Amino acid sequence: MRQLKLTVAYDGTEFVGWQRQASGVSIQGLLESALSQIDGAEVQVHGAGRTDAGVHALAQVASARVANAHDAATLRRALNAQLPQTVRVLSIEEMPPDFHARFSATGKTYRYLILQSDTASPFLRQYVWHVPRTLDVAAMAAAAVAFRGSHDFSALQSTGSSVAHAIRTVTASNVTSWSPRSPSGQPLPIAVPDDASLVVYEVSANGFLRHMVRAMIGTLVEVGDKRRPPESISGVLAGRLRAAAGITAPPAGLWLVSVNYC
Amino acid sequence: MRQLKLTVAYDGTEFVGWQRQASGVSIQGLLESALSQIDGAEVQVHGAGRTDAGVHALAQVASARVANAHDAATLRRALNAQLPQTVRVLSIEEMPPDFHARFSATGKTYRYLILQSDTASPFLRQYVWHVPRTLDVAAMAAAAVAFRGSHDFSALQSTGSSVAHAIRTVTASNVTSWSPRSPSGQPLPIAVPDDASLVVYEVSANGFLRHMVRAMIGTLVEVGDKRRPPESISGVLAGRLRAAAGITAPPAGLWLVSVNYC
Repeated sequence: MRQLKLTVAYDGTEFVGWQRQASGVSIQGLLESALSQIDGAEVQVHGAGRTDAGVHALAQVASARVANAHDAATLRRALNAQLPQTVRVLSIEEMPPDFHARFSATGKTYRYLILQSDTASPFLRQYVWHVPRTLDVAAMAAAAVAFRGSHDFSALQSTGSSVAHAIRTVTASNVTSWSPRSPSGQPLPIAVPDDASLVVYEVSANGFLRHMVRAMIGTLVEVGDKRRPPESISGVLAGRLRAAAGITAPPAGLWLVSVNYC
Repeated sequence: MRQLKLTVAYDGTEFVGWQRQASGVSIQGLLESALSQIDGAEVQVHGAGRTDAGVHALAQVASARVANAHDAATLRRALNAQLPQTVRVLSIEEMPPDFHARFSATGKTYRYLILQSDTASPFLRQYVWHVPRTLDVAAMAAAAVAFRGSHDFSALQSTGSSVAHAIRTVTASNVTSWSPRSPSGQPLPIAVPDDASLVVYEVSANGFLRHMVRAMIGTLVEVGDKRRPPESISGVLAGRLRAAAGITAPPAGLWLVSVNYC
């Protein structure tokens, strides 16, 4: 038996989420079916994090203990041939027997994309949150700084969560804006309207609570809309009340960017 | 009655193409239904060009003669409320009575995107042609120059087309490559794999024959694959035989970028 580390990209739009569920198609379920078929025996797959329905991953990490002896390139091709085009195995590495995608992870980075434009984009509708208003990006960036460090994030987890404690350490929390025009003034050949801009939030932490990034973004957008001052964030964290934070932003704008192991 | 110019973006993936057809959903059909409902009478919509099933538009132009007196912003909102999210009316302008999206057009620009990467992208699968090989982009760029100018493009139109003549004037024909990393080295926040690059073909002409851009790209990719020298293009044009050119590239990579009127 070998312990494998799989790096997987997926478009979460049409799935019930990463995690296998009684009804609906999950990414975990698809990977388990494909690996079980190759091994001829049941294979379990563990993900670094559970992404919700509609949430995407550029590089989710999964671990699996398999019996087959295929080299990484052959196994990757075999898996991609079985998986739908919305899920791609990017790489496979052999790991020590105690490697576990979730328990061995030391941190994760998520990105959230907001499309600021008059009209929604037909091409990005599943990948961004469309906000047809001008957000105060500088105020959002100032507010995002308050999330950095070790805090009790109870105010930013979905109600009813049962975790041992809600203390997490945020190592990066940055809001930037991005225009589809490159510095040379040439539009980039991607399907972003020329007059649009993206507001990009990137956050890294040693762990995330359920819906935490989406609640952070929902709160930051209220700051961008000037309905809440940037200085209010520390009070929201200290109060530990979910109702004091903003809404849970839609899943489509959220991307799991990377998982760290070190 | 007023003559309107509508600028429309759409994701062509799930449509039978621009043009109304007996079966299947077309962009023309959707716009005609929405405008007819607002007018309470049948409205005809004419497009600048017929895009095939799977082909996208950043800014298709359509003309329509309508009875309603709504201002542009109100009409645009009413149309977008009725249309699926994959079709967005970007702007509406009132034009002189003789304006016709197709006959008044003096030129069009198309873009074709090729994703060069080991693994296909789950996020761009409907928007690019995935080529898992390294193309000789310099050879493709050299070959593309031969398309510039006035030529008989019979070798690059789908067989069985019946047009008066196949002479078209190509005013721009450029192959460039684009990497998802900006000059500063920061990855752009778009769902393009970091190790991927896009080969971008842009072509402008006073008119295009059926499947002409896709046949141009099919031929250029054979040059990129070193199966055909860049110098062979002039001979292909002179011979006027479709069989001498390359395959018709898949529709998903093709984008109608703009239509000129002047």
